[in-house]
Amino acid sequence: MTEAGKGEAPATAAVLVIGDEILSGRTQDANTRYIAKYLAEIGVDLREARVVPDDENEIVAALDALRARYTYVFTTGGIGPTHDDITADAVGRAFGAEVAEHPEAMALLRQRFTEEELNPARRRMARVPKGAKLVRNVASWAPGFWIENVIVMAGVPVIMQSMMDTVGPQLRSGPPILAESIEAGAIPEGNYAMKLEEIARRHERVSIGSYPQFSKAGICNQIVLRSRDGTSLALAAQAVRDMLADLSR
Amino acid sequence: MTEAGKGEAPATAAVLVIGDEILSGRTQDANTRYIAKYLAEIGVDLREARVVPDDENEIVAALDALRARYTYVFTTGGIGPTHDDITADAVGRAFGAEVAEHPEAMALLRQRFTEEELNPARRRMARVPKGAKLVRNVASWAPGFWIENVIVMAGVPVIMQSMMDTVGPQLRSGPPILAESIEAGAIPEGNYAMKLEEIARRHERVSIGSYPQFSKAGICNQIVLRSRDGTSLALAAQAVRDMLADLSR
Repeated sequence: MTEAGKGEAPATAAVLVIGDEILSGRTQDANTRYIAKYLAEIGVDLREARVVPDDENEIVAALDALRARYTYVFTTGGIGPTHDDITADAVGRAFGAEVAEHPEAMALLRQRFTEEELNPARRRMARVPKGAKLVRNVASWAPGFWIENVIVMAGVPVIMQSMMDTVGPQLRSGPPILAESIEAGAIPEGNYAMKLEEIARRHERVSIGSYPQFSKAGICNQIVLRSRDGTSLALAAQAVRDMLADLSR
Repeated sequence: MTEAGKGEAPATAAVLVIGDEILSGRTQDANTRYIAKYLAEIGVDLREARVVPDDENEIVAALDALRARYTYVFTTGGIGPTHDDITADAVGRAFGAEVAEHPEAMALLRQRFTEEELNPARRRMARVPKGAKLVRNVASWAPGFWIENVIVMAGVPVIMQSMMDTVGPQLRSGPPILAESIEAGAIPEGNYAMKLEEIARRHERVSIGSYPQFSKAGICNQIVLRSRDGTSLALAAQAVRDMLADLSR
């Protein structure tokens, strides 16, 4: 991993999920959460996620908005051989780059398929915008690609995850974002909200959230603290635990 | 439900998920998929989803972009009593509306809590932008709210779902979006991609996607057809089934 220089701002990122199947409710997106966790571990801030349909104009508009704003944009979906797989063309258009068969991707195709099997649909999977480099992966012969700050990955989770493993070591990393979860159990949020706000104000380097969970057993609240700085995190976590102990007394 | 007038374009929608816990990977968002399915059943097109952090500027910017574009914007998260719950203030700012305690929400609070329990944190939950109406629900005393085309709901799934039940009958509905899934099984996508594209071209009123799933048993592909028109859907589905039968021969 490329370590961020001292004082350099942490790298930021957005996820762009491309696919009608997410917006129709057919498929539960799990890629965003996987990427979120992966990035937190290498200290990259995931700041936004978007889901757009298989529509070139929509993909281009979202890409342009996100790539201008964040260090990295990770897309998932739309790189297969079928007519609804239009991500490569959309990314090409966003960058004003011609989309053409990549020689290395064609070589991979030829390893995998006979000339007879190598129909135009399969050849589509070797098409990438000019200037892009391939993102190989161990889960599939079909590569993703990386152009400027946009990393284009598969929608199938096992392939996407393998592509993240390829890409991860090349990202600008930083101190991991550390997290500590503290169970507040059945103590109502309203009982600790004001004290928690005070703690949050006193520990500026720590981001603090309170998350209720409803189950048949009743409410169960969890307080989550996150920071790049272990000492700040430990101090804030102790303050939260003391506060909860006080309230339970 | 308010039936769309004849010839009126279908209502569109976006989901705006508000919460650091989604972007950190702590929590798997399940609300988007629930809302997606709910809207498809009442014929509202979900066109986009976004996830933003608990940051007022980010929430306002996303709200403004989405509410200008779609018939409805559904937000989830950020309406509890803790300091990280800032959705009401962000929505108020987006609409230039003062945020104040809603008398009806205060009455609900007073039914639920004693005057001693009614601290400023809990009273925060009764604050809504002026002009908003409350969205009651059976899962919790705490209401969401609805202002112009923005519907503000809880992040806790069981409460959000109950709020959708309150809101649903008041939305502009249309013919449900029908779907049919056809198993292509182990037939490789590349074998049917070109014929599927032809079918998609011949059936303009039907949207067709192909979705590979990878499991230990191997690849399993599914073709999903969606349309508001039952006859068009049935014809396209038959064409897909015939095509797959041909390929399996």
